Amino acid sequence: MKKAVVLLSGGLDSATALYLAKARGYDVHALVFRYGQRHGKEVRRALAIARRLDCPAQVLGIRLPWRGSALLDRSKPLPQGGKTTHGIPLTYVPARNTIFLSFALSFAESIGARRIFIGANALDYSGYPDCRPRYYRAWQGLARLATKSGVEGAPIRIETPLLHMKKSQIIRLGTKLGVPYQLTWSCYRGAARPCGRCDSCLLRAKGFKEAGMKDPALS
Amino acid sequence: MKKAVVLLSGGLDSATALYLAKARGYDVHALVFRYGQRHGKEVRRALAIARRLDCPAQVLGIRLPWRGSALLDRSKPLPQGGKTTHGIPLTYVPARNTIFLSFALSFAESIGARRIFIGANALDYSGYPDCRPRYYRAWQGLARLATKSGVEGAPIRIETPLLHMKKSQIIRLGTKLGVPYQLTWSCYRGAARPCGRCDSCLLRAKGFKEAGMKDPALS
Repeated sequence: MKKAVVLLSGGLDSATALYLAKARGYDVHALVFRYGQRHGKEVRRALAIARRLDCPAQVLGIRLPWRGSALLDRSKPLPQGGKTTHGIPLTYVPARNTIFLSFALSFAESIGARRIFIGANALDYSGYPDCRPRYYRAWQGLARLATKSGVEGAPIRIETPLLHMKKSQIIRLGTKLGVPYQLTWSCYRGAARPCGRCDSCLLRAKGFKEAGMKDPALS
Repeated sequence: MKKAVVLLSGGLDSATALYLAKARGYDVHALVFRYGQRHGKEVRRALAIARRLDCPAQVLGIRLPWRGSALLDRSKPLPQGGKTTHGIPLTYVPARNTIFLSFALSFAESIGARRIFIGANALDYSGYPDCRPRYYRAWQGLARLATKSGVEGAPIRIETPLLHMKKSQIIRLGTKLGVPYQLTWSCYRGAARPCGRCDSCLLRAKGFKEAGMKDPALS
């Protein structure tokens, strides 16, 4: 059975990417990062989602001693008020997806996987440089050149199935695939319940509303 | 003063790259990785070299739970006997330079550096996919697309000044620059003195011989 590595954060998009890879017939291996997020909730939810799908999950701890992002630095305010589309968000972590994909490439090559799935999205996160289609096109070339498998004619491909979807489309697709959205966590804060005010909560609420659905995480 | 991040391993090539970046007028910041090498000698030497140049060094610990390389896996024999040029060496660590460069990119962006120096060499390590010129060309594109600085028109560039040099040329250049080669460590083993038999020792010895010099690490 052909293997795929899936970057799993515990959020809505990556959970959908995981279920989609599985539905496409891949033997999926989740890769979860602890990289100094403000809270550990995302990681716990990622592991719960992988468990639900009965797929192996590898957790990697990464230290980024050079803080600077609101997602890592507790002294910075978390963005709220829907300012996600103006410029590069405060939650930008320098080269985060590049670091994640480089580990995924190493992991994929070592287990013989030829696909890496990432739930990146170019519409909702248009401000992030590493969520743009051209960034992923550049990665295809790099992944082919960087690895033994690429040299040997069987390159590892980066799959971004959600890149051009609206949040509501992702939610509709995932609902068909049986994604347990009640387990996913989008809130920038790590309280018992989502805050409902941060940009990530607002984006999620808008997605469920446009999909004509109730968010199962809120019931 | 313009800043540069330099990937420093404690070996001969990266030490030369560090001194070269400094000679070119950069305010250099060394980035050193602990990634599960067989021995910690390289890392200690890297720090000694940075200290000698009086430049700050950031050490990053990285766990690669998927072993598979002879450099990481103690159950695999270390290559010796000059088999470096046939196919991909046993010492290949999947996507290692890709992981290193992705962290360097994050570090560079966070400190406002616009250059990353890496002592990669395409001649001596022709078997490694991630030591080839085309791999580094692909990285230029990725580095520009991956970061906020790239979007803002000030991309971070990857500098590979040693890429096309023979080992003897690197040694001659470094000697002019004052590189303390007695502090550099090339041996795959971590004993008190270099073993003199592994491929890395043989390559180094050949370099010093062709440069018409004595290796100061052996005296």
